[in-house]
Amino acid sequence: MGAAILSGLLTEILIPVAAVVGIAFALVQWLLVSKVSLSPEKPAGSRDGVSDYLIEEEEGLNDHNVVVKCAEIQTAISEGATSFLFTEYQYVGIFMVAFAVLIFLFLGSVEGFSTKAQPCTYSKDKYCKPALANAGFSTLSFLLGAITSLVSGFLGMKIATYANARTTLEARKGVGKAFITAFRSGAVMGFLLAANGLLVLYIAINLFKLYYGDDWEGLFESITGYGLGGSSMALFGRVGGGIYTKAADVGADLVGKVERNIPEDDPRNPAVIADNVGDNVGDIAGMGSDLFGSYAESSCAALVVASISSFGVNHDFTAMCYPLLISSMGIIVCLITTLFATDFFEIKVVKEIEPALKKQLIISTALMTIGIAIISWIALPSTFTIFSFGEQKKVKNWELFFCVAIGLWAGLVIGFVTEYFTSNAYSPVQDVADSCRTGAATNVIFGLALGYKSVIIPIFAIAVSIFVSFSLAAMYGIAVAALGMLSTIATGLAIDAYGPISDNAGGIAEMAGMSHRIRERTDALDAAGNTTAAIGKGFAIGSAALVSLALFGAFVSRAAISTVDVLTPKVFIGLIVGAMLPYWFSAMTMKSVGSAALKMVEEVRRQFNTIPGLMEGTAKPDYATCVKISTDASIKEMIPPGALVMLTPLIVGTFFGVETLSGVLAGSLVSGVQIAISASNTGGAWDNAKKYIEAGASEHARSLGPKGSDPHKAAVIGDTIGDPLKDTSGPSLNILIKLMAVESLVFAPFFATHGGLLFKIF
Amino acid sequence: MGAAILSGLLTEILIPVAAVVGIAFALVQWLLVSKVSLSPEKPAGSRDGVSDYLIEEEEGLNDHNVVVKCAEIQTAISEGATSFLFTEYQYVGIFMVAFAVLIFLFLGSVEGFSTKAQPCTYSKDKYCKPALANAGFSTLSFLLGAITSLVSGFLGMKIATYANARTTLEARKGVGKAFITAFRSGAVMGFLLAANGLLVLYIAINLFKLYYGDDWEGLFESITGYGLGGSSMALFGRVGGGIYTKAADVGADLVGKVERNIPEDDPRNPAVIADNVGDNVGDIAGMGSDLFGSYAESSCAALVVASISSFGVNHDFTAMCYPLLISSMGIIVCLITTLFATDFFEIKVVKEIEPALKKQLIISTALMTIGIAIISWIALPSTFTIFSFGEQKKVKNWELFFCVAIGLWAGLVIGFVTEYFTSNAYSPVQDVADSCRTGAATNVIFGLALGYKSVIIPIFAIAVSIFVSFSLAAMYGIAVAALGMLSTIATGLAIDAYGPISDNAGGIAEMAGMSHRIRERTDALDAAGNTTAAIGKGFAIGSAALVSLALFGAFVSRAAISTVDVLTPKVFIGLIVGAMLPYWFSAMTMKSVGSAALKMVEEVRRQFNTIPGLMEGTAKPDYATCVKISTDASIKEMIPPGALVMLTPLIVGTFFGVETLSGVLAGSLVSGVQIAISASNTGGAWDNAKKYIEAGASEHARSLGPKGSDPHKAAVIGDTIGDPLKDTSGPSLNILIKLMAVESLVFAPFFATHGGLLFKIF
Repeated sequence: MGAAILSGLLTEILIPVAAVVGIAFALVQWLLVSKVSLSPEKPAGSRDGVSDYLIEEEEGLNDHNVVVKCAEIQTAISEGATSFLFTEYQYVGIFMVAFAVLIFLFLGSVEGFSTKAQPCTYSKDKYCKPALANAGFSTLSFLLGAITSLVSGFLGMKIATYANARTTLEARKGVGKAFITAFRSGAVMGFLLAANGLLVLYIAINLFKLYYGDDWEGLFESITGYGLGGSSMALFGRVGGGIYTKAADVGADLVGKVERNIPEDDPRNPAVIADNVGDNVGDIAGMGSDLFGSYAESSCAALVVASISSFGVNHDFTAMCYPLLISSMGIIVCLITTLFATDFFEIKVVKEIEPALKKQLIISTALMTIGIAIISWIALPSTFTIFSFGEQKKVKNWELFFCVAIGLWAGLVIGFVTEYFTSNAYSPVQDVADSCRTGAATNVIFGLALGYKSVIIPIFAIAVSIFVSFSLAAMYGIAVAALGMLSTIATGLAIDAYGPISDNAGGIAEMAGMSHRIRERTDALDAAGNTTAAIGKGFAIGSAALVSLALFGAFVSRAAISTVDVLTPKVFIGLIVGAMLPYWFSAMTMKSVGSAALKMVEEVRRQFNTIPGLMEGTAKPDYATCVKISTDASIKEMIPPGALVMLTPLIVGTFFGVETLSGVLAGSLVSGVQIAISASNTGGAWDNAKKYIEAGASEHARSLGPKGSDPHKAAVIGDTIGDPLKDTSGPSLNILIKLMAVESLVFAPFFATHGGLLFKIF
Repeated sequence: MGAAILSGLLTEILIPVAAVVGIAFALVQWLLVSKVSLSPEKPAGSRDGVSDYLIEEEEGLNDHNVVVKCAEIQTAISEGATSFLFTEYQYVGIFMVAFAVLIFLFLGSVEGFSTKAQPCTYSKDKYCKPALANAGFSTLSFLLGAITSLVSGFLGMKIATYANARTTLEARKGVGKAFITAFRSGAVMGFLLAANGLLVLYIAINLFKLYYGDDWEGLFESITGYGLGGSSMALFGRVGGGIYTKAADVGADLVGKVERNIPEDDPRNPAVIADNVGDNVGDIAGMGSDLFGSYAESSCAALVVASISSFGVNHDFTAMCYPLLISSMGIIVCLITTLFATDFFEIKVVKEIEPALKKQLIISTALMTIGIAIISWIALPSTFTIFSFGEQKKVKNWELFFCVAIGLWAGLVIGFVTEYFTSNAYSPVQDVADSCRTGAATNVIFGLALGYKSVIIPIFAIAVSIFVSFSLAAMYGIAVAALGMLSTIATGLAIDAYGPISDNAGGIAEMAGMSHRIRERTDALDAAGNTTAAIGKGFAIGSAALVSLALFGAFVSRAAISTVDVLTPKVFIGLIVGAMLPYWFSAMTMKSVGSAALKMVEEVRRQFNTIPGLMEGTAKPDYATCVKISTDASIKEMIPPGALVMLTPLIVGTFFGVETLSGVLAGSLVSGVQIAISASNTGGAWDNAKKYIEAGASEHARSLGPKGSDPHKAAVIGDTIGDPLKDTSGPSLNILIKLMAVESLVFAPFFATHGGLLFKIF
């Protein structure tokens, strides 16, 4: 077997150091963003600013009114977002407490709340801590995960609403400056989230160890609560935020663009602030908590499998911490990668934006491959065994390297395929745009077909990574493949958060009445942002698929099922019903967006009809009411889909037992991942087809435009349909599949003991 | 064990008698339809016609011009449909021969083309006929199934194009007369198909038995080729016909309704004949061969499992023929049911149409339940054993009754849920119509959400039937549950074919320049037809799900796999890739419709622009070119999706082996059934939301209308998007899941011997 090169002590030091470096880097980025002044007293930029004056356009740089206006709008957006998140947190807080109690009761009941030590699940000859202790620590780690998730989302929102107006102001100096501001802000979020997630998990493990001592089986079983906490908050973040943002967006567009014929983000539109708030609570806070959830879950899945493999049995701390070391390395790699975008090169023209973002993906993946090789070399024994459904499977360290690396590279493939299908630089989106010639119907047909088609290669990529990592290292291989895909999460989130920030910046430019040229620059940033958002969603979905499979495997091990045979009625009905759940869930979320949007439409219409001078721009609309409508609607509407996801594993596990639950998990995984990818890409493609026509950058595009032409109107309809698909129902499905898996894993001890009531009765 | 009450001899007599009665009944219905004269020499109707004159409106009854025009249009439609089918058959013929050779070579190679008897697969101590004989007979039964499927589709198309104009003419006398004509014609198709399918299968079994003698294992293994033949023709029928009909429909609508603002089916529209041809080749011939395929496959699946159960081992012919006896009883029950619609009651007003059709479903289901009970009582021993993955499971005759009955009733549930979600009498469609107020985008969002939601109950119904029938009688239970759902196929097809006939009748009325009132009547028939079409699709999908599971089970038995464990990498990658296939397939078919429709749009535009006097109605359009475009496009476009379906099992089985193939089958089944249901229902709902607004039958509907209002325009967009969903990609998915399963079953001996090359090499 042999020991790892890296000593346990060094591991204990390296992980927190990497996390702290990540946090420090995030703070430095924040500091750099904050240098863009939003107070009109002194001119923007200090000494550097002076040189900017010389090399860039100086349009409106000294117009203090514009700065004041931007600051005002930013405050309104920030206040709206904060108020929504606080309202959401009140409800989520109640849920959190209730669910924590539920976890404690369910898990505590496994051994009848006994405080006596019990035989270990996997090594029956040893004694482990009582089930009651596991119940308590699981509850605790659930709360920790939930709070970390909330904090991650909140911080992301804060920096985004801090950066949006600053990006607008920098856009006056040129597209490169604006890009760097938006990108740095995205990086703040990416690094804070990755580093925080790692740090909290690391601290929790060390604290729990004080109690658990050598009972690593119990320790890491309890730690899975962290993943559950993270993911259940992500559910509300994604669903609530997703409904919020799209209700406001669709509502604003339907009256503003379609009925009143005023441009997007026009300050006369009462829903415009709500729309911009939505980008921050949905695409930023929601996305952040989603990816945090994936990260936490894949770490937990890897740890729980490792704890019953030779790492755990031999108490090899360094090897045990392999997943955390991978994440630590990821932070360092992403740090270097970020410098390529912000310091090593400078963007000067619009067409450099997309390549710069793509380079981020390639550089981080290439560097990370080396990083993984190093970690696999120093942190793992040359040979070890991995628990695989009741057996111990022999694995070599280079085999584990392949598992992580294939996950990482599969992520890149998914990213590029997503880009190909959603960027208007390639033929798929151009074909969709072209189909607008014959109206909205063909646009929708082609868009749906595009989304379906875009599923093919990502699924093959996922299948290959699953096959390779599964064959090499069983469920542990899958878990570390997921971690590999998420190892560059800081960069992924940076380019992902960059999108909504640019979107907001454009909105602020429009609302502040800045010139057409500023808007064009932010639009260019935004178009690239749409593609990167789609790439980010691709990553999120791909990693969700791997994560849930890993969790599923861990669940099956914990529930002591030896096979999940499709050819047993219990499993098959689970499989087919599981495959149906994503549809049920999507029906709920889409309908929610529709209904909330209709309410918004009514309010916007009411304001246009009753506030005199609104259309003429002499009176101000009542933004706050629209913000309130979105808030109330999303809080109310997130409950049924949330309940569906949270209750399904509990009901199925309790009444139908672990076999049926396994079927449900497998079914929802294989079906959900397809809808999630196709919905995201269809929506992204429609959005960019519209932008392609609007931008008119080629002969072909101009033949379809300009704004207001019939093809453009058809494209706007497609874009509006795509909104809930790509920002609400699609990405929420990640959570559906992950959350059900992690919840099943956490409750596995209960289901294994008391589950399947219905079959026991009959 | 005990023997069945029904003697073998009586079984030998009863089955063909029932089939012949069914055929005779179909011919009588045809005769009754033919009484409606299409030649203008003598007035329509004989003595009965005279009394009609007294009780119904006599609008235009004596206008010979109208009759001549109707006859002309009918001829054009019929010629177009015949020419398309013949072109299709040429291509399909080549495929058929090539695939027959493939089957022979693959299956013959299992034992190296040896002509020596071999040990039986399931009873190793006995000797069975050589694999080469099985290869030959499988090829033969494949060809038989294929030809029967083609004949079924062709006959259906013939009677439909025979009945459409007659329905139009009868509509002059009243809605009741028109209804009966359309319904009778549907019944002709339903009974011909059910009876032919039964008769050919019965004859084939008896002829094969002359060679096989007591080797029932080999006999019924060869018979599965019948299902493969039926289903592979259905593939081309559904896909080719589906692309044809929707290319024409969408193309005609996009120019006619949207650009030129002329009504649907206006004779000035050059694509109007192609559109009406499409209804016949897609919704009639395609649907017919689809359901024939399901019927043939479920019979084959049941027979092949029975042959290795006690029925087959003990050579109990009556019990062996249980599936055929159920179908025979179905013909008799449907015959009685039909009389309720055509003779026992008479429809006088529009609002009686839908209830009359619904009653058909209820009556046939109720009567059939009794019928199943009788057959289960007389044709089965009180106890017997069923082969269940290597074991023999003890089953009682009343348990088998439950299996069939639950399939039957699940079909009814699916039918009613489909009706609820697609009929404009209920709130779901009305909500969708209401969402048109805010434009096409909300209409699409609500429509998609409706489709997703409509999946829930059918999936639960399917899951319950699977669980019950699987638990009671293993894979045989599933197969007979599928047969139960299809036992009332004659009635199902009758109410299904009724829809396109009414649609055509409306088209003919419009083209022949008949009055507004006639069109209103045919529209009412058509609206009910839309709902029944959706119900029919629901049945088709539900039965496809059960059938493919049964085939899947038979495949697994034949391939000698004991478990299909999701937790092995080979199976899991199959599962996730399988779940992706329906998306790939849908992307192809939808894109095909889109591209073909664009070609049609260009041609229609060209004609409007270049033929002087076309818009004014003084010049005739060139219908033939449009028919040719649809024909060529659909033939060309059906190849890639066809290849995907036909090649996947061959490639996966040969290179990855039977475990991965099992995963693919399970994945495509659980994922495909969801998309198929949601696509059909979304499309049906959009169609009826549009009709709801057009009909203006309630205060609410009038507030959205009239034709040409903004909400109506939004509804038309939804309807156009729904066309390929409900008539091409959705229903084609049935074939995807069934065909891959039956193909795997037929090739199972080859895969089991030579499959999995890739894993063998590495």
